Amino acid sequence: MQKFAETQYKLHDLLKARWSPRAYSSQPIPTEDLLSLFEAARWSASGGNGQPWSFIVVSQENTELRQKLVDAMSGNNKVWANNAPVLVLAVAKVDLEQPARNKFAYYDVGQAVAHLSIQASAVGLFVHQMAGFDPQAIRQAFAIPDGYEPMTLMTIGYFGNVNDLPEPLRERELAPRTRKPISEFVFSNAWQEPLALPEISEAAAD
Amino acid sequence: MQKFAETQYKLHDLLKARWSPRAYSSQPIPTEDLLSLFEAARWSASGGNGQPWSFIVVSQENTELRQKLVDAMSGNNKVWANNAPVLVLAVAKVDLEQPARNKFAYYDVGQAVAHLSIQASAVGLFVHQMAGFDPQAIRQAFAIPDGYEPMTLMTIGYFGNVNDLPEPLRERELAPRTRKPISEFVFSNAWQEPLALPEISEAAAD
Repeated sequence: MQKFAETQYKLHDLLKARWSPRAYSSQPIPTEDLLSLFEAARWSASGGNGQPWSFIVVSQENTELRQKLVDAMSGNNKVWANNAPVLVLAVAKVDLEQPARNKFAYYDVGQAVAHLSIQASAVGLFVHQMAGFDPQAIRQAFAIPDGYEPMTLMTIGYFGNVNDLPEPLRERELAPRTRKPISEFVFSNAWQEPLALPEISEAAAD
Repeated sequence: MQKFAETQYKLHDLLKARWSPRAYSSQPIPTEDLLSLFEAARWSASGGNGQPWSFIVVSQENTELRQKLVDAMSGNNKVWANNAPVLVLAVAKVDLEQPARNKFAYYDVGQAVAHLSIQASAVGLFVHQMAGFDPQAIRQAFAIPDGYEPMTLMTIGYFGNVNDLPEPLRERELAPRTRKPISEFVFSNAWQEPLALPEISEAAAD
């Protein structure tokens, strides 16, 4: 199922096609395609090229660990997430001595996961990130040491059958994707000053 | 100048082509291309679709504000960053009452900037993010209110002439891009357990 973004301005198809479904097929993922997602994360930007990201992959065959992850998930995630052939935990490397600096680690892990999601789009896969889980239970399930923090757990796989989802998840899956208009979050020169690009418009009209 | 990522596995060209240069041309950016970058950020994923990102655009004509930004930058950023036709500040919406929750705001702003950077790659533009600046001076220059945090200042423009950069920046610009190998940051089932994808490999071989 395609749910292309309804854009105000042009946007590359790879980015238009990326969305976060809940209806996953159990179809396995070819290894080379899965590895291409981590290659994408690998080449993401980071402060001082610090690359503060790690990923832990759990395939569907590890039923014992899968059950621990489902138990740690919040609310509706328990219902749909385990259908995906691959679950991946994104982990941030943090500085326990200087916690104020960790905002950039979180930011960089977000960038790496975005790269991963966009490469997924390039090979027909979909990623759905979840922050709704018990972080202590997840830390324990994966034996994450101090100095590292579980950030998001994500499902990776092919789109399945929307009718396999119970309501209200099925209805939500079919609803259009929505975002704030650009005028609400892009400004010129100062906070809340409306975007104005006169010089650039003239140049474009040349 | 192209600096394609030297990948271990396949990777979409848009992602391969993205890198963070310092040698910018002063060539103006067509408005429709610049807007496409914010469209890309707009359609990024975020926790509960909260979209905790904002952007403030400063074109080269606003010399007074540009000077304040250069004054607030650290080290070498002062030398090269002001040559880019567009500077953009990425801002995170934070919760002052529950600071522990802000890690996801930082993460989501990182995702949005990654989307922006990849769309830049689609229209021949390059983004270089900087965290090296005095956050208080930047907050003041843009009149950012409480409840919002400056995250990164980024340059956006076309690649210029590497010989315009002083040493050691010129040499750094010409050096190959480097990253950790995938085996150092992608694991299976538990922290530091080597990646093994047997079931998936078999499926791929079908």
